[in-house]
Parts: sequence; C-alpha cells; structure tokens
Amino acid sequence: MALPPDATLADVGEFGLIAALTDLFPQGEHVLIGPGDDAAVLRVRTGHVVVSTDLMVEGNHFRRDWASAEDVGHRAAAQNLSDINAMGGRATSLTVGLAAPADLPAAWALDFARGFADDAGAHRRALVGGDLTRAEQVVIAVTVIGTCTTAPVVRSGAEAGDVLALFGRQGWAAGGLAVLGRGFRSPRVLVEAYRRPEPPYDAGRVAAEAGATAMIDVSDGLLADAGHLAEGSAVSIDVRSDAFEIPEPLQAVGAALGADPMQFVLGGGDDHALLATFPDAASVPAGWQVIGAVVAPTEDGPAVTVDGASYDGPAGWTHF
Amino acid sequence: MALPPDATLADVGEFGLIAALTDLFPQGEHVLIGPGDDAAVLRVRTGHVVVSTDLMVEGNHFRRDWASAEDVGHRAAAQNLSDINAMGGRATSLTVGLAAPADLPAAWALDFARGFADDAGAHRRALVGGDLTRAEQVVIAVTVIGTCTTAPVVRSGAEAGDVLALFGRQGWAAGGLAVLGRGFRSPRVLVEAYRRPEPPYDAGRVAAEAGATAMIDVSDGLLADAGHLAEGSAVSIDVRSDAFEIPEPLQAVGAALGADPMQFVLGGGDDHALLATFPDAASVPAGWQVIGAVVAPTEDGPAVTVDGASYDGPAGWTHF
Repeated sequence: MALPPDATLADVGEFGLIAALTDLFPQGEHVLIGPGDDAAVLRVRTGHVVVSTDLMVEGNHFRRDWASAEDVGHRAAAQNLSDINAMGGRATSLTVGLAAPADLPAAWALDFARGFADDAGAHRRALVGGDLTRAEQVVIAVTVIGTCTTAPVVRSGAEAGDVLALFGRQGWAAGGLAVLGRGFRSPRVLVEAYRRPEPPYDAGRVAAEAGATAMIDVSDGLLADAGHLAEGSAVSIDVRSDAFEIPEPLQAVGAALGADPMQFVLGGGDDHALLATFPDAASVPAGWQVIGAVVAPTEDGPAVTVDGASYDGPAGWTHF
Repeated sequence: MALPPDATLADVGEFGLIAALTDLFPQGEHVLIGPGDDAAVLRVRTGHVVVSTDLMVEGNHFRRDWASAEDVGHRAAAQNLSDINAMGGRATSLTVGLAAPADLPAAWALDFARGFADDAGAHRRALVGGDLTRAEQVVIAVTVIGTCTTAPVVRSGAEAGDVLALFGRQGWAAGGLAVLGRGFRSPRVLVEAYRRPEPPYDAGRVAAEAGATAMIDVSDGLLADAGHLAEGSAVSIDVRSDAFEIPEPLQAVGAALGADPMQFVLGGGDDHALLATFPDAASVPAGWQVIGAVVAPTEDGPAVTVDGASYDGPAGWTHF
C-alpha cells in the first residue's frame, strides 16, 4: 500500500497503517495464525519456549535526529533478538507495540517497520502481532519468542576456575554514541555500529552446545554485565585489559575527545556482544576471545575487577 | 521489600523497584526460568503457542484520576488475557513493560503490579518477564502467551446460517465510562465494571470445544467487533435488539444522561465479553446467549445490521 508522502499517523489512521505495515512482514512456516486475529498461534517443535520483552523510548533510548527510523527499527529488533541469543536459544517470532504522537509522519512508522523487518527477516523471524496507539512520545515495545534445543544458558552457572570469553565487537557503538553526542558524524564505522548493531546471532547457540556455564549479552556495558554474571553466579570476575586490542577508529575517537579508548570497550553496551563463561580454555568455541577469568568471590561478595584491581578509569564506564 | 511511602521511581531506582515487584509474582510449574535473566523459559505441553500484545497509554486508555493503580493493573491483565480467551486458548504467562515519568510515585507502580498480579494470579498465570524505563507518560505494554488444546477459533470461520451468541456482561463498562466522563461516580456497579472488567475466561475454551466457528472478544464495541467477524468471514451479521434485556443500572444512566441505554450495549467494548458464532442453536453452550444470526453478505460486501437495518442510533456507538 502506498501512503501519501506527507501523511501523518492521524491522516492514515490505525487500520490504514496496519495494512501497510503487515505487507512488510512475511510469515514463517511456524506461524499457524499471524497478525489480524485476537492472537497469533505458533507451532513449537520443542517443549521449551524462550521469551523476552523490552521498551525503547524516544529521547531516552534513541533520538530521531541521531538515527533514522530504519536504524531505530533495526536496533529494536536486534536488541531483543540478542536476549534470546544470550540464552543459547533461537528467536522465531516477535511482537511490536508502537505508541506515537498523531503527528508522527506515517513514513517514519513505515521506515521503522522496514528496518525492523530487515533485521528480523534476515534471520527468518516472523512478526506475529502488534499494537498501534497514540502517545505523546514514541514508545516501542518488543517481545521476542524463541525456542531452545539445548538447556538454556543462565547467568547463574559460572564457577571459580571458569574462563571468561567474549564474542563480537565491543565498544564500537559506545564510541559512535560519544561521537554523536559531540555533534560529529564520523568515524562512520562507529556511528553505524551504534545505529545498526549486529549481534552475533549464531554464537549463543554454539556456546550453549559447547557447554558455556553462564552467558549474557552486553547491553548495559561490559563490566556492568560481567557484574550481572558475577552476582548471578556468586563469583568474582577479573577482566584482563591486555586481552583487547583497541581498534583504530576507537583510538582516533579517544584522541579526538581526549578520552581513554579503553573506556568504550569496558563501559560500552550497545554492540550486543556476548559474554560467557566456559569450564576451561579448551572448550571455548572458535571466534570467542578469552578476556578474563572467574575467581572466588571476595569477602565482600561478588566483584568485577580489571587486571586484578577495581576499575576506576577516567570518565568512568557508568557515564554511558 | 518495603518502599518509603513518598518515594518516586527516581528515588527507588529501576533495580529497587524490580526487586519489590518480583516479589508480587509467584511463578508456575511451567516456568523453568522466570524474571531476572536475559529471557524467561517456559515449558509448553502442546505444540501450539498463542501470543497477543497490547499497549495502554495514560490519558488515552486510562486516567489516573478515574481509576486507581490497582484498577489499571487489573485491566491491563484482563484485556490481554481476554485475547487468548477469544482464540479458545488458555493463557499461562505474561510479560509487562512499564514506561513512566521519574516522578511517578513508586507506590503507583507497586499498586499497579498488585492489581495485575491479582488478576493474573487468580487464574494461575505467571509474570515471566518485564522492563521498566523512563518516559513522559505512563505506557504499559503487555504480551500474553498461552496454549491451545483445540484448534484455535479465528475470526474467519463464520458462515451464513450460523447463530451469533454472546457470553458475559455487555455495555456495563461503557455505562461506567459515560458516568465517569460526566464527573459522577455512580452507579457504582457500572463504574466498577469499567475499572475492573471480569472477562469470562473459561467461556472461550468451552466455546472452542463446542465447535464455535468464529470468535472475538468485544473490545472495540459489540457492533464494531461483530463487524470484524463479518469482514474476516466475508458474511453479514444481524443483531437482534430484543435479545438484550437492558439491566437496571444502564436504564438509570440512560435516563440520567438522556441517552438510549441500548447504545451502551451495542457500542460498549470494555467488558471483554465474548462474541462467537456456532453452527446452530443446539451447539451453543450453556451461559451463552443467542443475539443474532449470520447471513449472506450484501451486494456491497459484509455488513452488520440491527434488526435487519443499519444502526443509526442517537449519539452513535462509535462515540465510545
């Protein structure tokens, strides 16, 4: 369905927009009943269903002047699919709720859906349901549903003696966000990493099959999420800074902003890399990089250290 | 966890509030992994999973001065559970995203969760995941997941010759809303019907087992939702107004507001009654009330009529 180029949501109406959106989302074989009824019905082959939900709020999780609608759609899909990845599962289906002002250009909603469909569809996930309503601010609610063929990998399984490993780019999106925050648009590769994260969707299942003891996706920040693993498992975690080679664009941003580029690596979250623990180095699958070790908790309980000491870098990682 | 009585969300923080909220939601046996990890994991006995999602926005779907936080929580659960009911399924699990201003009283969020837990828990549904974030306005995103043990009942199965039947109170919530809109608080039974709908959660499965050919929950309004059935099934539907006995409180509100109380019945949506079609009157289960018939579509396509004519009552039902 073609929409007039300047149409707003109010012009097009809920049902008009839904019709245009539905066209963008092909359904998979596992979808017995797709959008348009009271609920969708999915066929599930295994007996385990994995579910996660997330909100994205304009001004808080994204800015319309920093990212295109397609980028926001792409990111909304990616960050939710990443949660299933972090359980060792495979996402099959998504629902999306979009609350938006009546004067939002209908083209923004369509472009958002295109970005969402682009990311979800590339990995054969179906959009099986949604809701569209009016609000003062754009709020996006995504729920993702998947299946697990191995035991799900939770946050609580790490033990002292395990190795800590990372899969995927880390710190690139944080570097891109720092650049955008100063009004710049380059290095482009970092800005793109922020706008369109590419979580390593197959790495989670491979890690689960390889016997990962605990796993999480890096969404709050590497040290923060290592902290969630440490808390969940009642262990401490030591990250080795020499495990990271700072990529050239992050070095350039560090120099330009007068910041230690290691803070993007240790503090950044938006790349949705995977962080997991394995019983030993031999069980770490190809593509994963060993970046630290699981040790006994301190007297004060679980802690995360960098090179054996508490991390206290300039501008601190919590600032992202 | 006890919160200080005047605390706001900003005072309590995301993690503090999540801890307090999680305590409110017991997990069922089918929940292998509940809230707190990247995703929840559910055991599913049958191979069919039913999914629905909905948004509720402050000022649009509810007003904090018209309904208590507990009422809003109750309604958020009920309207979503009702969608699974309308497929003939049984809801087992819910996720909730809550976006709210930082100065929202933490007690509001807790009371909302109490109302939600109260409704969901009474029917043994588990809250398996959620998200909490900041926004200018309260936005609630609920996804509900269930299972089907019969073939799901969709909107597209009605055929000419079927009978149309209704289960549950109809028009009460619309009467309550009309009263609230004029600044009144009584008749209390109608206001309560609006604030705390009680969808007939078992009627959907019973109808599916009895061979219902199409089904929908009345959320947009009786005639509007009959229209969705008619469109979905490419049939017309005639509703018989003499099938309804106008209950006394609706008569009172009609008299007080100078409105035809039938408009609450034909136009009201918030009771979440079930509307279904059955092959004949003999197959309509106990408790369902026959209110009309499915007929061949008109030359202009599917239509909904009342007593054989297009409905055109004073103040029209679309005003709700």
